[in-house]
Amino acid sequence: MDALILGGGGMLGRKLAESYAADQEATLSRLSLVDAFIEPAPPVGAGFAVDCSVADITDPAVTQRLVAERPDVIFHLAAIVSGEAELDFEKGYSINLDGTRLLFEAIRGEGDDYCPRVVFTSSIAAFGAPFPEIIDDEFILQPLTSYGAQKVMGEMMLNDYSRRGLFDGVGLRLPSICVRPGAANKAASGLFSNIIREPLSGRDVVLPAERSTRHWFASPRSAIRFLRHAATIDTQRLGARRCLNMPGLSATIAEEIEALRRIAGDDVVQRIHDEPDELIMRIVAGWPSNFTATRARELGFSAETSFEEIINVFIEDELGGQLP
Amino acid sequence: MDALILGGGGMLGRKLAESYAADQEATLSRLSLVDAFIEPAPPVGAGFAVDCSVADITDPAVTQRLVAERPDVIFHLAAIVSGEAELDFEKGYSINLDGTRLLFEAIRGEGDDYCPRVVFTSSIAAFGAPFPEIIDDEFILQPLTSYGAQKVMGEMMLNDYSRRGLFDGVGLRLPSICVRPGAANKAASGLFSNIIREPLSGRDVVLPAERSTRHWFASPRSAIRFLRHAATIDTQRLGARRCLNMPGLSATIAEEIEALRRIAGDDVVQRIHDEPDELIMRIVAGWPSNFTATRARELGFSAETSFEEIINVFIEDELGGQLP
Repeated sequence: MDALILGGGGMLGRKLAESYAADQEATLSRLSLVDAFIEPAPPVGAGFAVDCSVADITDPAVTQRLVAERPDVIFHLAAIVSGEAELDFEKGYSINLDGTRLLFEAIRGEGDDYCPRVVFTSSIAAFGAPFPEIIDDEFILQPLTSYGAQKVMGEMMLNDYSRRGLFDGVGLRLPSICVRPGAANKAASGLFSNIIREPLSGRDVVLPAERSTRHWFASPRSAIRFLRHAATIDTQRLGARRCLNMPGLSATIAEEIEALRRIAGDDVVQRIHDEPDELIMRIVAGWPSNFTATRARELGFSAETSFEEIINVFIEDELGGQLP
Repeated sequence: MDALILGGGGMLGRKLAESYAADQEATLSRLSLVDAFIEPAPPVGAGFAVDCSVADITDPAVTQRLVAERPDVIFHLAAIVSGEAELDFEKGYSINLDGTRLLFEAIRGEGDDYCPRVVFTSSIAAFGAPFPEIIDDEFILQPLTSYGAQKVMGEMMLNDYSRRGLFDGVGLRLPSICVRPGAANKAASGLFSNIIREPLSGRDVVLPAERSTRHWFASPRSAIRFLRHAATIDTQRLGARRCLNMPGLSATIAEEIEALRRIAGDDVVQRIHDEPDELIMRIVAGWPSNFTATRARELGFSAETSFEEIINVFIEDELGGQLP
């Protein structure tokens, strides 16, 4: 199986490549990593050919060239994240909408004998308040950010191109990925990761939202499992609705902090400083916090069931398995 | 108030212009009718300036020119209908998606001191089976046609541009408009009109679907009321969800035919010939048939409550008020 990862320089793209490289069972023959901003690093120990490049999917010649290699699976993870798409209207629409469409059009342009699996990362940002207490699989998509609007537009094209047999798409509405490693990106949801990662790394951190804030989480490890499962799932079972609410854990910030206390102790937790920010609290109030994710669970997707698990994944995968 | 109607040569555009022209209370100062295909006819008896032109909204110079006149209200009714958008993939995306986006971008390009009301016709084709028995205002948008996908994409932009204050949008998910006058267009839903209009006009007609088929209807007169109400409604009451399921009448084809029999007699009804068509029946099975339309009703939108009413509107507005 030949795979192409767009957004291969991002956190998920990198971890996805590493996951395939570490997996002796993975039947990958070739992996192409492409990113617009960061030259992706080839994963260590891959038993398959890897090529890495910097390329911009808003250039139709680029998407045509990438697709002309006819990868069997295309992971389309490339996106301008929520905070930046909100600040830069044109950049968000250009990459998140036009880039996605150019990719899909390039696949269509390859003709009838090419029908790759396309795995597209949508987001729970596809939803916007007001919400029921728990969001089922039939709740209306009404985003409250440009990023969310662009993701829903991508979903619509994914469904339509798949229904027409132009490719075989699966869309994943990802929970907030937590704990994100490394420096914060411009995703507004970064605060949920920051309050775990920074204290565990010996640094103080500001908490700009209220501790009662509830949100929907999965670890990076779960996200990679979602992506790999989506690459091989039987899409007959999806019908025309190709996009799924991914499973996750519903937790409050207070519950995050209590899990951190149980794992790392009071001293670490004391590095969190409450400094409520009106703007951030208003943004966060528009976010969903709980899903049934019934369809996805029935299709074999699963995630963590406690915040301790989520923190332990971070400690194992990012801190070498032990507290600093 | 200056108004611009895009799609001014279509059935709704023409009737909307006629409605303003006939209304002594209408406070229109100017009306521009634009259509890509048909030179719109100026409405008779208008007490305001009218200009009519043929122009293609997929040309950015055209949308910029139209918007540069700074109409207070823009009715964006221009679209490739469902049947044609399904047959011609590129034309559908070009006009329904790109044309809509170019219009919205032209408005954005006018700058901060211009914020027109934009009334956008979406459709119940924004929904796709499987459905609950009655669709509420929070049911997921999952179209089963390219036309429906393009309409949802337009809705997403309408919400996003409105949320950002770039214009003041209202989207209307129209029921199937019935009874459509004149020759059938390429909308797949034309069959529901054909079986009323053709027999009333002394012509035989084929019914390609089963009589038990249930669907969601409003008359052209209701549609014009929806559009005019949307042009003046207080959008503060809409919040971020700018698109509304319009009220309508849920009726089966059998109920349509019984209403026709009560109004026009057995001889007229006998001009309907059942010739079930597998393809059409499969398409129709994916269409919604009943909505609560609660939000729209609370905002003052209303439609017919019996199919006799719908037929009588056709007889009054299209047949001069009497049976031929």
